[in-house]
Amino acid sequence: MSADAIRSARAYLLRVAEPPASALWRFVAEHGPVEAARRVRTADVPDRVAAETAARRQLDLATRDLELGAAQGARLVIPEDDEWPAWPLLSLEVATGRGVEGMAPPLALWVRGEAVLDDVLAFAVAVVGARAATDYGESTAAEFAYELTDAEVTVVSGAAYGIDGAAHRGVLAAGGVTVAVLGCGLDVGYPAGHVGLLNRVVQRGAVISEYPPGTQPARHRFLVRNRLIAALTAGTLVVEAGRRSGARNTATTAGLLGKAVMAVPGPITSAMSVGCHQLVRDSQATLVSSVSDVVDTVGRLGSGLARRGAGARRRTDGLDPESLRVFEALPSRGGRSPDAIATESGVSLRRVRAVLPALELDGLAQRCDEGWKQRNDQGASRRRGDDDHDPRVGRGDA
Amino acid sequence: MSADAIRSARAYLLRVAEPPASALWRFVAEHGPVEAARRVRTADVPDRVAAETAARRQLDLATRDLELGAAQGARLVIPEDDEWPAWPLLSLEVATGRGVEGMAPPLALWVRGEAVLDDVLAFAVAVVGARAATDYGESTAAEFAYELTDAEVTVVSGAAYGIDGAAHRGVLAAGGVTVAVLGCGLDVGYPAGHVGLLNRVVQRGAVISEYPPGTQPARHRFLVRNRLIAALTAGTLVVEAGRRSGARNTATTAGLLGKAVMAVPGPITSAMSVGCHQLVRDSQATLVSSVSDVVDTVGRLGSGLARRGAGARRRTDGLDPESLRVFEALPSRGGRSPDAIATESGVSLRRVRAVLPALELDGLAQRCDEGWKQRNDQGASRRRGDDDHDPRVGRGDA
Repeated sequence: MSADAIRSARAYLLRVAEPPASALWRFVAEHGPVEAARRVRTADVPDRVAAETAARRQLDLATRDLELGAAQGARLVIPEDDEWPAWPLLSLEVATGRGVEGMAPPLALWVRGEAVLDDVLAFAVAVVGARAATDYGESTAAEFAYELTDAEVTVVSGAAYGIDGAAHRGVLAAGGVTVAVLGCGLDVGYPAGHVGLLNRVVQRGAVISEYPPGTQPARHRFLVRNRLIAALTAGTLVVEAGRRSGARNTATTAGLLGKAVMAVPGPITSAMSVGCHQLVRDSQATLVSSVSDVVDTVGRLGSGLARRGAGARRRTDGLDPESLRVFEALPSRGGRSPDAIATESGVSLRRVRAVLPALELDGLAQRCDEGWKQRNDQGASRRRGDDDHDPRVGRGDA
Repeated sequence: MSADAIRSARAYLLRVAEPPASALWRFVAEHGPVEAARRVRTADVPDRVAAETAARRQLDLATRDLELGAAQGARLVIPEDDEWPAWPLLSLEVATGRGVEGMAPPLALWVRGEAVLDDVLAFAVAVVGARAATDYGESTAAEFAYELTDAEVTVVSGAAYGIDGAAHRGVLAAGGVTVAVLGCGLDVGYPAGHVGLLNRVVQRGAVISEYPPGTQPARHRFLVRNRLIAALTAGTLVVEAGRRSGARNTATTAGLLGKAVMAVPGPITSAMSVGCHQLVRDSQATLVSSVSDVVDTVGRLGSGLARRGAGARRRTDGLDPESLRVFEALPSRGGRSPDAIATESGVSLRRVRAVLPALELDGLAQRCDEGWKQRNDQGASRRRGDDDHDPRVGRGDA
């Protein structure tokens, strides 16, 4: 099956079903995208898939969408691509497997931007909040975003006015990488006042949408989009939220997906902090008042962010001395057998065998043909086009 | 044993041991205050009691202290008095019984003020916080205190500048009853700038101390005093607190005593909210942003405050219809047998027998010689000198 055929099939499928399309997602998982697309086209599908695709299955715009996207500087990233953010999106797969409604993983993602998706999303936190943010909220969002960038954490947000925009601006001010997830097509230019900001995000980060070119924004699409913001990150930070806020929806979804949910407190006199206080009071969110709190919270949930969110020096900070010795005995290229690692590190073979899988879970070691080696995907700033065979340079080394 | 002899013995004991004196407290509980005082005077006591009393046992100032107190408008309230706040102080007894250090109940309390202690402390919340409070903190403390008064909850605090003072002023502005607990003698006039405020507290509420007349303020006495603030209330609300704040000590003690601990959030940029945020983040305190949150939190901990903190109308608000019918079948004077209550209420005898003890726990019913009656100690504003045989009028009825 050619890569082009697969990409074309997914472009078609992304167009014919309104996300989240859980029956179609399962159908594709079962039959593969090309076969699934063929059967959707010919209406040779189970009822549940037909229900999701019947209205649009004639819209065979894959070639046009891919050409249009390319002309607009967008690419379609598919699960078959190396850069597909499989690990963060696993949470949606798990939730869907458990029958949670509305949590189907995306069939593919339209992306504009220089960032390599899986890299940039390896250590990410969502910064979300009210459109009608206060000065306090906007400056807090920008400050957190700036400091998260310093801590080598990628910021993910929407593209709305208020907190979303302030978060992206904070990252850009720090010279960092930021990701915006839209509830409309990448070419729609919504909201109009943020077109310039999104173009700046594209230069270093990524603007993402599962909606094909030309898809108009709609309230339900922002709610559906929120699941991607929650899923693509290790945790969601609500900076300001009114009593009924879309940000609270993202927070609830993040909780549902087992991600960290955090909220920034504010004056009790501020209507824009009511939602944050309610989340904390209801034990749905952890109160955070600094980026150090954020890293601590996300780290405590076992995502390993606190450890992995930095360069090689920092990502081993949480290791005990024995694990550190084993880690340092791992080659960065090629591989080494547990025996050789034991010799190199001076740690007993029995302990080496116990420590290696733990290092693997922490994202510090990986198995290879020759044994074990250091896992090198440490930076959040690998650009597309970087030579994958070069040692990757984290932002901390820049 | 005459009441005067007991009071005199306790005045003596209060003078000879620096609180909290757990060995002396246990000794008094075992032998009674008069016998305990006699044996302390003659040094006929176990080593642990001797350690607490040896330095001052010659200070036989009971008569002088009682006369001086009376001249200064203060009375010594002792556990043998009707107004002794036995129920709230039970938490100290329990903690001491469990061997928790520093939690000995007071041997007696010096009191200035019109309030009847057990009444005024039946439904109380501590409002505490930093001396160096911000405008936000002071206005929040005053506002909460004002609204707690409206909700028929007594405010208890220290007498410091900042949050303490703002809380008392908020109650006084609402025409309510407030209680100040001091870490020095009632006649010491500390802090100097709050002498006028404390005199106003005395007019409707109470100023309390376990320290005999003339005892000078000292840092350790404020920490010891904090256990009384925590114990005398159903919960402690920290309005503002820096990283190291005495208010956090009170909060920790309240938690230790099984009382509700609450904290008001504020801007993350405010150093005076750091302690509050830390308490919430560490799950030591529940975030509250309104008095309704406070009543809800304290009520949830089973103190019954939410239900009992109001007049007759309100205190039955939480009852299910069946319990309400049983309650309404209870006479306010005399008593009625379960049989007669079943007839009156139309609720089965079996259910009446189940509901009555629950109403008793809720403070709504009490056993008497003739059976059961409504429990009437509902108001927080009974004044000393009110005829105890009159139906008591809650503030809600004023």
